[in-house]
Amino acid sequence: MSTTEEVAEKLAELCRKGEWKQAVNTLYAKDIVSVEPRAMENMPAEMRGIDQVRGKTDWFMQNHEIHSSKVGGPFLAGDKFVVQFDIDVTDKASKKRMQMSEVGIYTVKDGKVSREEFLPMARERT
Amino acid sequence: MSTTEEVAEKLAELCRKGEWKQAVNTLYAKDIVSVEPRAMENMPAEMRGIDQVRGKTDWFMQNHEIHSSKVGGPFLAGDKFVVQFDIDVTDKASKKRMQMSEVGIYTVKDGKVSREEFLPMARERT
Repeated sequence: MSTTEEVAEKLAELCRKGEWKQAVNTLYAKDIVSVEPRAMENMPAEMRGIDQVRGKTDWFMQNHEIHSSKVGGPFLAGDKFVVQFDIDVTDKASKKRMQMSEVGIYTVKDGKVSREEFLPMARERT
Repeated sequence: MSTTEEVAEKLAELCRKGEWKQAVNTLYAKDIVSVEPRAMENMPAEMRGIDQVRGKTDWFMQNHEIHSSKVGGPFLAGDKFVVQFDIDVTDKASKKRMQMSEVGIYTVKDGKVSREEFLPMARERT
């Protein structure tokens, strides 16, 4: 069974390569709980189960052009780790280009990510 | 009563000015729970109550020379916020100079920080 550190390092590595979907497929628990700061379009803030999270990842990839991303961390202690993301994306529908900066707080249980929670940088909230 | 955002912004601002003690005195709940990744010297990993946390801050200030510090964030959502710290310090006893990088996860309750939890960057763990 993977340790918190192994899961954290692998997740950061896959995100650095832009392999977001691979991260979900290999590191997430079937009953993952994923919490965004607020509801987006047709998605609730809190999603449950790996199918919903795969759907969210697909939606993001299909609707955004990712110009670059920077991944900081992981930071870790106990069963938790934190990864920082700086992502430069364009929303395909509105053509709006955004620099998003956020952290994810991840909880590991039985060698898999059981919970993820995203916190955007404060100055970007409007 | 201060919102999570107000507490987060104020804490980041005071830490940027190096006013760590002022942050504890003005923003922390009396029954604050403070969790380090591991026990240090005579201090347990988990401390409870503002007097213990003040003692930890005093110990850190007295035993380290802080050359510079960088504060990232705050990142926030709901009742939680995250601040990133990059601190360049020398341990006065061992003369060892260290670049520490960590995040703090803070929980706000009734307008005060009720819990803080520190996670060091993974590559620094030995």
